[in-house]
Amino acid sequence: MLNTFTVWDDTIVALATPPGTGAIGVIRLSGEQSIAIAHVLFKGKDLLHQASHTLHVGMLKTDGEELDEVVIALYRAPRSYTGENIVEISCHGSPFIQQQIIEACIQKGARLAKPGEFTQRAFLNGKMDLTQAEAVADVIAAHSLAAKQTALNQLRGGFSTDLNKLREELIHFAALIELELDFSDEDVEFADRGRLEELVDAIDKKTHELITSFKLGNAIKNGISVAIIGKPNVGKSTLLNALLNEERAIVSDIAGTTRDTIEETLNINGVLFRLIDTAGIREHSTDVIEKKGIERSKANAVKADIILHLVDLMDNEEENAFEWLREFQNKVVTVYNKFDPWRKRMEAQGKIPVPIPISIDAKTGYGVEELRQLLYRKAIGGTVHSEATIVTNARHHAALQKVQESLAAVKSGMKSNLTGDLLTIDIRHALHYLGEITGQVEIDRDILGTIFGKFCIGK
Amino acid sequence: MLNTFTVWDDTIVALATPPGTGAIGVIRLSGEQSIAIAHVLFKGKDLLHQASHTLHVGMLKTDGEELDEVVIALYRAPRSYTGENIVEISCHGSPFIQQQIIEACIQKGARLAKPGEFTQRAFLNGKMDLTQAEAVADVIAAHSLAAKQTALNQLRGGFSTDLNKLREELIHFAALIELELDFSDEDVEFADRGRLEELVDAIDKKTHELITSFKLGNAIKNGISVAIIGKPNVGKSTLLNALLNEERAIVSDIAGTTRDTIEETLNINGVLFRLIDTAGIREHSTDVIEKKGIERSKANAVKADIILHLVDLMDNEEENAFEWLREFQNKVVTVYNKFDPWRKRMEAQGKIPVPIPISIDAKTGYGVEELRQLLYRKAIGGTVHSEATIVTNARHHAALQKVQESLAAVKSGMKSNLTGDLLTIDIRHALHYLGEITGQVEIDRDILGTIFGKFCIGK
Repeated sequence: MLNTFTVWDDTIVALATPPGTGAIGVIRLSGEQSIAIAHVLFKGKDLLHQASHTLHVGMLKTDGEELDEVVIALYRAPRSYTGENIVEISCHGSPFIQQQIIEACIQKGARLAKPGEFTQRAFLNGKMDLTQAEAVADVIAAHSLAAKQTALNQLRGGFSTDLNKLREELIHFAALIELELDFSDEDVEFADRGRLEELVDAIDKKTHELITSFKLGNAIKNGISVAIIGKPNVGKSTLLNALLNEERAIVSDIAGTTRDTIEETLNINGVLFRLIDTAGIREHSTDVIEKKGIERSKANAVKADIILHLVDLMDNEEENAFEWLREFQNKVVTVYNKFDPWRKRMEAQGKIPVPIPISIDAKTGYGVEELRQLLYRKAIGGTVHSEATIVTNARHHAALQKVQESLAAVKSGMKSNLTGDLLTIDIRHALHYLGEITGQVEIDRDILGTIFGKFCIGK
Repeated sequence: MLNTFTVWDDTIVALATPPGTGAIGVIRLSGEQSIAIAHVLFKGKDLLHQASHTLHVGMLKTDGEELDEVVIALYRAPRSYTGENIVEISCHGSPFIQQQIIEACIQKGARLAKPGEFTQRAFLNGKMDLTQAEAVADVIAAHSLAAKQTALNQLRGGFSTDLNKLREELIHFAALIELELDFSDEDVEFADRGRLEELVDAIDKKTHELITSFKLGNAIKNGISVAIIGKPNVGKSTLLNALLNEERAIVSDIAGTTRDTIEETLNINGVLFRLIDTAGIREHSTDVIEKKGIERSKANAVKADIILHLVDLMDNEEENAFEWLREFQNKVVTVYNKFDPWRKRMEAQGKIPVPIPISIDAKTGYGVEELRQLLYRKAIGGTVHSEATIVTNARHHAALQKVQESLAAVKSGMKSNLTGDLLTIDIRHALHYLGEITGQVEIDRDILGTIFGKFCIGK
């Protein structure tokens, strides 16, 4: 199927390291002529007859002019990232020199690579499937351990393995149906309908699991949003600072200090959290600006993955002042603040202060680490460290939903006793959408363009 | 001499590519344990028994956790940049991953490299002398062809070769003097004083040439400053734009528009020029702000390598309105602007407009390219393309001046018929200062610290 694409036979070149000044920079060539182009520019050694996976030190020259002293890394097709001949030129980390070398390569026949073109060639040459190619960008963009781990798992083909199992099961199912079809004249049902239903249910269940994992996958990739809400002056900004271990929010004793929404990222056990400090919520506020802030707080809370509802232990008012929170109950974590003064007051009153679950003191730091771990468990549970595949890509998620729709059509078809030839149409749909994820079926050029266009140049 | 330094036996690690996100990043390890550290982290292959100058693809893991899929470039001592075992890890261009890998290397026994420490080790291990090590930083910092060429020449040891010739000549001279000394009891003069004088004159002349080249070398390295001065509204900003081929300065017909000094860089034939557009100079200005601008213009002109004095051909006033320019005569280039309207006026008056040398029309671009070439010749002459060594480093310049001082002492000593043993003291001084440049004599740790401290980390 892959040969339905035009595989370019030209040689591409690009800077592979970040732009700017550094100790070294790496320029990457890929294509039939890579080694020949490097050979023409390289002085001192015959690069044409060197083995793959070797390093060569020498001077690059063009038209008698010295470009730089470089190290050439040589990879011969198909034993390379793209599956083509690759030359990587390590030069001095000067933007000026890098530009000169790239221009010299272009002059000798290479052309500038488009974003993601190296990885696209790796895909087109069968070195990786589409989910692996997409994982390359995710690995580079990963800012937390969990995001990197899921991306690396996908890069190594973990996700593809799961999808291929689904495909195989579907193909097996289709084979049974088609076998029945071949003998349809004889009006026999080879495939036991009961077994078929079980099979399609199992496939559907697996698809559903993958779809469900997207919420977590997306959270891992983009961070888990935690909206900190509570009445004015309950200590939200102090808690934010305590969680971050730094002075980020302006803290004051005047109720209503925080009007702008403050967003900060926090890494707990390798998972990225986006903490959103919101304006203190009073059910009936008169200040117009504060009212606006409160509206925004509610909106943030609605969108957040987790709502951290901060309650003042010293406060005698009803704790659950926010009626609207009830509908988000399963994502609310209620935390009781100002434990230390509360305990002192209790002791002064001669009472024994029994710690209330998830009570903290944001000012002294009491219970803050426990809260961090609670947030982690709430967000991730045991899933990250389990072997379960997590879908992190919106394109995959959309395709899986289409797979599920097709499976639903198969199931309803079976219920209404559709004939095999009609069932296979929906099964083929499901197979097609699965194939779209890994790139096993022909992918629209525009979709490929969108996928690889997001890459940086040089990857 | 080199073994008077402590050669570190620990292994250093640093990011060698610019920080930030890119296709790939390179982490460099150098030291006895480099390969062993990489081996512990690398899965899939025994790195301990691989040949030098080879590439290995695999997964980096630490404590069971996957770090990244990487390529390992392996160099065995002494066939490496530093002369030690070097491992270069090419990983995905994610700052997060790079940080993880560096931390893993440190955990396995490496320590973070100090700025320039790789190159410092290359120097200490005799892979390059001090001028070559310094050239590494210059190559990276080079922003023009000429700056890069002089730096590359120095990197390849061009400057050291010149210095070594000087050293050899001086040693020869010293040998003759000392031979005389050995036989001083016999009161014979083995060394012909006339020949000795010739020899020291020749060495002195060479030293002088090198010292003189520093002005040009410094200009090549840092750019040649050209102050554009002239009366208000003579077309300075228009000329700046014409030279740059872009709209940089705000151009208006109102005299005195340019009050801030505008500085732009221009690359002519690979040499960097820094063009400084200055406020129009009127000998007697009343506007206080304009007066300040004029003062700054004069100050710029005094500091500039070249003063481009722009004169209005259409203007009937005395062209050389600026008395103070006379003392800078040898760096002034007088250029006549507004050639086109002047020619039209001449033709209207029935006169034949003979082009005045260096006449231009900044508006139409007439003569601007010729002016560019004139600036180039004025700044560089034929020296850049000649084989002459150019001193670009202030440290070398200072040392060469001390060499010259010592040689002057030798010469005056010879004139006053000093005995050989006294002469040799000054000759030894000269030899010492020459050796300081290349690092052949012991260099103060502080000086080494200053030299390598300017490098980036990872080089």
